[in-house]
Amino acid sequence: MGALNGHKNGVASKPNGAPAKQLIPVADRLEEGRALAQDVWSVFNAANLPADCINLGQGYMNFAPPQWITDAASEALTTVVANHYSHPKGRMRLREAIKSYYSPIFGRELDVESEILVTSGANEGQYAMFTAFINPGDEVIMFEPFFDQYLPSVVFHGGKCVYVPLHPDLSKPKLTSDDWHIDFDELRAAITPRTKMIILNTPHNPIGKVFSREELLKIAGLAEEFNLIVQSDEVYDTLVFDGKEHVRFATLPGMWERTVTVESAGKMFSATGWRIGWLIGPSWLISPTLAATTRIVFCSNSPMQEAVAAGLEQCEKHKFVQTQCAEYVERRAILADAFDRLGVRYTLPEGSYFMLLDISKLTWPEDYPFPASVENRGRDFKACWFIAMEIGVSSIPVSEFYCKEHVGIGEHYARFAFCKDVDTLKRAAERLMGLKKYMKP
Amino acid sequence: MGALNGHKNGVASKPNGAPAKQLIPVADRLEEGRALAQDVWSVFNAANLPADCINLGQGYMNFAPPQWITDAASEALTTVVANHYSHPKGRMRLREAIKSYYSPIFGRELDVESEILVTSGANEGQYAMFTAFINPGDEVIMFEPFFDQYLPSVVFHGGKCVYVPLHPDLSKPKLTSDDWHIDFDELRAAITPRTKMIILNTPHNPIGKVFSREELLKIAGLAEEFNLIVQSDEVYDTLVFDGKEHVRFATLPGMWERTVTVESAGKMFSATGWRIGWLIGPSWLISPTLAATTRIVFCSNSPMQEAVAAGLEQCEKHKFVQTQCAEYVERRAILADAFDRLGVRYTLPEGSYFMLLDISKLTWPEDYPFPASVENRGRDFKACWFIAMEIGVSSIPVSEFYCKEHVGIGEHYARFAFCKDVDTLKRAAERLMGLKKYMKP
Repeated sequence: MGALNGHKNGVASKPNGAPAKQLIPVADRLEEGRALAQDVWSVFNAANLPADCINLGQGYMNFAPPQWITDAASEALTTVVANHYSHPKGRMRLREAIKSYYSPIFGRELDVESEILVTSGANEGQYAMFTAFINPGDEVIMFEPFFDQYLPSVVFHGGKCVYVPLHPDLSKPKLTSDDWHIDFDELRAAITPRTKMIILNTPHNPIGKVFSREELLKIAGLAEEFNLIVQSDEVYDTLVFDGKEHVRFATLPGMWERTVTVESAGKMFSATGWRIGWLIGPSWLISPTLAATTRIVFCSNSPMQEAVAAGLEQCEKHKFVQTQCAEYVERRAILADAFDRLGVRYTLPEGSYFMLLDISKLTWPEDYPFPASVENRGRDFKACWFIAMEIGVSSIPVSEFYCKEHVGIGEHYARFAFCKDVDTLKRAAERLMGLKKYMKP
Repeated sequence: MGALNGHKNGVASKPNGAPAKQLIPVADRLEEGRALAQDVWSVFNAANLPADCINLGQGYMNFAPPQWITDAASEALTTVVANHYSHPKGRMRLREAIKSYYSPIFGRELDVESEILVTSGANEGQYAMFTAFINPGDEVIMFEPFFDQYLPSVVFHGGKCVYVPLHPDLSKPKLTSDDWHIDFDELRAAITPRTKMIILNTPHNPIGKVFSREELLKIAGLAEEFNLIVQSDEVYDTLVFDGKEHVRFATLPGMWERTVTVESAGKMFSATGWRIGWLIGPSWLISPTLAATTRIVFCSNSPMQEAVAAGLEQCEKHKFVQTQCAEYVERRAILADAFDRLGVRYTLPEGSYFMLLDISKLTWPEDYPFPASVENRGRDFKACWFIAMEIGVSSIPVSEFYCKEHVGIGEHYARFAFCKDVDTLKRAAERLMGLKKYMKP
């Protein structure tokens, strides 16, 4: 990186290396939304870790999307229209493809004009939904551990996050994601007159839990009773294992009317860098969200929309979802087998591509040199750092997915992503055996 | 479009066609930010106009980006990493390319880590800057006519827009964009203790004005005096004609420290659908904006970032900017010539790809059947509708770029975009001759 400090093009270097002075304060929402603190992704960025560290941290693939999809992107790039603005709702070809793919799944004929919205990744779609519906003081319920972007997305709009933790059944020696439970009394108690929305995430990141119909029906009952909007983040819906049924929240009785389902091309087609997601829901929820996203990004990138349309149009022909799912079962087995051999507790996920390792019994030398970015965080930050530095496998500390008050629950876990090729996972598994000597019996 | 109403896949149609009931109200910011009203782009969407209408409305090209740039996108699509998440700051190759391209222009060596931020289009970058700096009640000054996205972007964050109109010198029979002036007493009077930011747009959409050094120095003086942030939207900076100098606001004495310059690959490389823009400024402005954009979109799409990097790396070799600029001079001449022959007043733009036609003297039959979307808007909405329907050339009414109180200024103008190929512009010019019979002498 030495070139970065060079004097290219004969321009003068800056007068000094001191950081620029903050002449004018930032908006309060950044502090309140945890956005100024160093986030977990920056701390555990590959750049901060040993060069040969195997990255099971951030959830992106070390393989490419299928070539029949990238070919469609390249083809789109040779046209005029697919290089220019799309309609803020999304390109018609993609909206039609979404309609064809999901109408049978939702059991209703989706309307491409009012019930489907293409967004710049699922993330931006979720963000726009908060822009559209959250007034200052409105409350949003989320289950812990929660995907860390939810918190700032709600708080940036003046919303208040209300947290309901999922509880693992620690009486069991071996856990699956099904052993993490909602306490429905806690959920009911969390609802106030200011509650406007519940965020649901099934399959769940980072637990991998695929919520059961029974659980979802109970949530649906509360949504109805208290007139709540449900944002159902189902971006891992094509990754459900062991014959487990993925129940779409919007298909439960009465729930279409109050639910927006969130989907992601990145997760579905191994293309996390394409930034294409979509929302499906009734027009009274989609239309204001369209108004918001139009102002936030105007529209989403056009060539990738064409590619994603091709993906949805042809995935049945290629048996893509089934094949990919089988591949993920194989990947999951490599990691699970390693943890079994290690003899430590973990949660076997029934969906998604994450696995939680219980790091309660991991020990490290008292004088181990942790960096400042890790020193004052939960125990899991130290554990993940130690594993990355000593074993050469990176993971993500799970306390980041909890509110401050509940960090004590999250700090028992490290999240390992298995959206990597088999060889990489096998090498990681081998290295993880090295943890044995640091484990308390 | 009949297929849209068909019953595909055997799924049941919706119980009825009635719009879904708004079970829960939307956030107040949508109403305040004009986001619920039908926007000008929807009203004048090609779908609402005659099929053979020549589209000089929305500012996108009817030609593709250069093939040496789209080839770079296709190449990126064959790799693994360029299909996955980029760093929220932008891909290093693109940040390096931005550094190399702009460091000589800004007269300082830009820091790729803290002074450059890639965003999902210039639009999202500007939006994120408001997220980062605008607290409820903060005031943002913008010159009228303003790019219509500024208003909701500020208001969504609780900010208050304060408008300072540019005044055309109507004593002249023939205007250039240089004949639109700031009244600096009005500008000074618009500043209050709550003023936090000025949005500057040079070259200006829709006037085409390239602000003079003298004008910019006066604005700089006020920014210094009142400690203001300047968001300098310079997305049309590669489209400056007639030897006019484009002065970068950030290069004025003392202004680097308080300015973020906004740039757009869409405008520069004729790729409006790629949604890649970038911000350049001091770290105290870029770093909080990074924190905001990370939460809004997480990162921008990766394959297009690689393509844009190639564009910046190679544009000098291809003499791309000079060639493109000469092409735009030719395009501008076709439209200007048509307006000259028509004998109506217009503003010859010295930058951007927009031309304002003075439609004060356009008449239409009293009983002309205007749709409801146009009926209750400024006179320019009717004029643009009439021209589109009767002459077959679409344009955009300029009152949309003014606050409610100043609609009376904007409704004298229609904006024509000349980012179209020569043949299309020639056909449009021919059709525009048909306006002669509707013009009052």
